[in-house]
Amino acid sequence: MPKDSYLVGLIGSGIGPSLSPALHEREADRQGLRYLYRLVDIDTLGVPAEAVGDLVRAARDLGFDGLNITHPCKQEVIRHLDALSAQAEALGAVNTVVFEEDGRAVGHNTDVTGFAASFARGLPDAPLERVVQLGAGGAGAAVAHATLTLGAERVTVVDAMPERAARLADSLNRHFGDGRALAATPDRLADLLAGADGLVHATPTGMAAHPGLPFAAGLLHPGLWVAEVVYRPLETELLRTARALGCATLDGGGMAVFQAVDAFRLFTGREPDSVRMLADIAELAGAVPAPK
Amino acid sequence: MPKDSYLVGLIGSGIGPSLSPALHEREADRQGLRYLYRLVDIDTLGVPAEAVGDLVRAARDLGFDGLNITHPCKQEVIRHLDALSAQAEALGAVNTVVFEEDGRAVGHNTDVTGFAASFARGLPDAPLERVVQLGAGGAGAAVAHATLTLGAERVTVVDAMPERAARLADSLNRHFGDGRALAATPDRLADLLAGADGLVHATPTGMAAHPGLPFAAGLLHPGLWVAEVVYRPLETELLRTARALGCATLDGGGMAVFQAVDAFRLFTGREPDSVRMLADIAELAGAVPAPK
Repeated sequence: MPKDSYLVGLIGSGIGPSLSPALHEREADRQGLRYLYRLVDIDTLGVPAEAVGDLVRAARDLGFDGLNITHPCKQEVIRHLDALSAQAEALGAVNTVVFEEDGRAVGHNTDVTGFAASFARGLPDAPLERVVQLGAGGAGAAVAHATLTLGAERVTVVDAMPERAARLADSLNRHFGDGRALAATPDRLADLLAGADGLVHATPTGMAAHPGLPFAAGLLHPGLWVAEVVYRPLETELLRTARALGCATLDGGGMAVFQAVDAFRLFTGREPDSVRMLADIAELAGAVPAPK
Repeated sequence: MPKDSYLVGLIGSGIGPSLSPALHEREADRQGLRYLYRLVDIDTLGVPAEAVGDLVRAARDLGFDGLNITHPCKQEVIRHLDALSAQAEALGAVNTVVFEEDGRAVGHNTDVTGFAASFARGLPDAPLERVVQLGAGGAGAAVAHATLTLGAERVTVVDAMPERAARLADSLNRHFGDGRALAATPDRLADLLAGADGLVHATPTGMAAHPGLPFAAGLLHPGLWVAEVVYRPLETELLRTARALGCATLDGGGMAVFQAVDAFRLFTGREPDSVRMLADIAELAGAVPAPK
């Protein structure tokens, strides 16, 4: 009997507003699958990030097919897994766990593959010689890996915490080769952007809770492409400003969709329809209506 | 937003062939609910019955709405619950756990209510002055509670293990009042059936793995009604023999369906269509085709 029933979930902190249940379940419904995506919020449970190991084991025992993992458990979960994909191993972070038929728990990172797929689709001709990335946190690490995997010659990582930027640049150089990544402080942003092909924005600025621009609008120029990680709202002030200047832009919805596309494929072995899922996220994340 | 998504499961030993997933999921599909019923087999997990407490807590944490519980965990689970229904308390056995909105785990017993509902539907006019019940195991305890709740004046419990029959009779008398239950050994079955209104059969005899009759066919007589607990197959040799004699009969499918009906209602707060579920079990349990 072919398996047509899937139980998955998301473990993390403060995940109540996650769009993942709707993204996965809508696509599964179109494919005629029985599919349930449950949120397991460690804040609600009142347990620390270290509880992720017990939760992963329990999920396997109770018949889950896989899990998404998010902040603050993406690193902590690794020591509880049986194997890692190449991307997850390189990044040192897991956002997707698949329970194989033999019971093994295998960690993947679809933030990396998801950003890469979104970028390749949305900015296919973007030059990648000099890329500036703002933000060296967890999302920043994933998208820097993706950008370098896509062939960026050099990524300069800028973060308000200099040691965090330096740590990420070191790790990228170890993995991709010396000189592929640099670290810089925000005061150098004007110079860096003036000579860059594109900007990847990977800080929370622009989210509903952190509105505004991550830096002065005057630092943008028409020669830059701008890729955004924030997807709620899809149209951040950064993207609006960049587009008004004539920049090619990529919103964060693509990364959110393609990480879900890749996770769905890992969980089910079936190919999701990414075009339909992009339409879903536009609706779910509340796209700004087109001007009349 | 109305809740339309349910995650439930069954914890027990050797439950691979259970019809519960299909019974629940088919009815949920007809009601347009997202509903997943997972089997959690302690044999497959390699854990003892005592693991049920950890499994119940984990299921609550991972977003399950409820659980069915079966052999050998129906008693063991009780000390891990926050409250019990009247039937579960009286019987000392739980086959259904509901996770309430406030996080409390409440135990119910729908084997009792399920047999009672099936009996009331299938043998509504059956006299209940003198009932003989064969089998004093877990199923036997549940159906004896149901028969006495339905108003049986006296139930005589017969079991090949005399102390098991005596223990059940004692427990029934404590709960329903002195004299409502008696214990007897199988050598007295001929006399008991000769003076009885009906027989409840609650041993495994007649199942595919234990074919045949539970006692000599000559002990049956047309004045008896015969209610069966076995439901795979629906048409046991006991039922076939009794029907040929002209006895009113009740197959085990009704109990299997109505325990699921009652569990479904507890899990979802929605009323299942028991007529459609009776048709499901006839199909799922492989009813004998009607003779041409």
